[in-house]
This record gives sequence, structure tokens and C-alpha cells, in this order.
Amino acid sequence: MFKVKVLTEGKVKEKWLQLALEEYEKRLMGKMEIQWVIDKDFEEIALKEKNLIALDPNGSSYSSEILSETLFAKWGARLSFVIGGATGLSSQVLKSAKVVWSLSPLTFTHQMVRLILLEQLYRAIEINQGSSYHK
Amino acid sequence: MFKVKVLTEGKVKEKWLQLALEEYEKRLMGKMEIQWVIDKDFEEIALKEKNLIALDPNGSSYSSEILSETLFAKWGARLSFVIGGATGLSSQVLKSAKVVWSLSPLTFTHQMVRLILLEQLYRAIEINQGSSYHK
Repeated sequence: MFKVKVLTEGKVKEKWLQLALEEYEKRLMGKMEIQWVIDKDFEEIALKEKNLIALDPNGSSYSSEILSETLFAKWGARLSFVIGGATGLSSQVLKSAKVVWSLSPLTFTHQMVRLILLEQLYRAIEINQGSSYHK
Repeated sequence: MFKVKVLTEGKVKEKWLQLALEEYEKRLMGKMEIQWVIDKDFEEIALKEKNLIALDPNGSSYSSEILSETLFAKWGARLSFVIGGATGLSSQVLKSAKVVWSLSPLTFTHQMVRLILLEQLYRAIEINQGSSYHK
């Protein structure tokens, strides 16, 4: 089973986002374990992580199909994702990341990125299993 | 004030998405009027719309800043966005669109696209007004 850490800062304030994250965590149960590391020093923590994937607008982008392949073939089953705050990630964190991934050329709220990340991880697993979730 | 139609099919089922859409519609109040056209024949309706923007993975992509400029300078204040179902949009609809816009190389659920669209339209207005919402 995948074990994924998500490192970021700031509590989820909106009720809708709490419900949405719960929904995708429920869907991921038994497939992927999600551990939230919500800490103002999340960047320092990130620097100590081994398989660090940084979410940043200047990163590489993938289709959901390629993301699924990459997740299973290259990234491995123990991963830490780091999501920057309003000012983005430090160059030190970006340098220490194994991969820098851009979700979209659009800017999303840092909180909405959490939801898009979970949905894409769930989608990646469903694509790999050939389920009907992905089209 | 902007007047925007969103043409698509399928009721919003998830509570979290209902709450999220309400939140962004509330934020858009007085800035943009959103009219939902949820109809199984949404593609036929779309063909009759003048300023049609089709959301499709094979479209052009924009940063949020360029989207804001494009919205104000080129697209105009009366717009219809069309979001395809599970099988995507017909070639007829894609051909009749003024612009084909891709939110991301990733695939999102057709329902989540509604939320991302509203958030980006709200962000585009805030960028134009120089507010603190965008970074």
C-alpha cells in the first residue's frame, strides 16, 4: 500500500473543503495512507524527506494517465508531497525535491491544491486498476 | 457586470461541491452573474450561443494572469462556457466555440471543473482589481 505524507501549512478553514478531503481520503482507504503534516515549519521538515515531490507552478506537468504511470513506475510507494504557502516554496526545498510537479498553468488556492492532489492520486490508482472512474 | 452562462449536464450530487459552488457564487455577487444551464441537451443549446468558450483537454492553456487579461480584453462581458460530460464535447460544439480552453493537462471530474471554472473567474476579476486574493 502507498504511504503518502502531505507537508503544508494552515488549517483547512472551509467546511466544503473539509468534506471534500474526507470524501477522497475515504475513497483512498486501503489503497493509500495519507498523513497530513500541517506545520509552520513544513519546509524544514520537507528538507529531511527522502522521496520529496514539490508542487510548484514552474514544475513539470503530466496528463493523469502519465501521472499514473509515473507514480507506479518511478516515484515509488513512500512519498512526501510539499505544497507551498502564499509565497511559494523556497529554492532550497525545490532543489531538494526529487520531482517538481505543476498541476496546471493556472494558480489555485493553496488549500484547493490539497483536494486536487488527493483526487489525482485517487485517479492515478483507478487508472492503474483499469476502473471506470477515469472516463 | 459580467453575465456568464455555464452549460453542462448532471446535477451536483456531492454536498461539498454544492457548498463550494455556493461560496464562489456568493463571492462573485455584484461582479459576475452566473446562470447555470443544466440540461441533457446542453450541446444543442451551446451551438446557438454567441460567445462560446468550450472547456476541453485539447484547448489552449493560460496562466491565471493571462486568463484575467484575456477575459477583460478579448472575451467580453457576455460569455457561455460549455463543459462536456464523460465522453467530452462533440466536434460540432468544439468547432462552433470562439475559444477552446484547457484548465490543465490533468483530467478532473466534470463536476470539479465547475468549481475550478468559478474560482478562476473570481480570481481573474480579483487580479484585474489588484486585490490581495491572488497571492
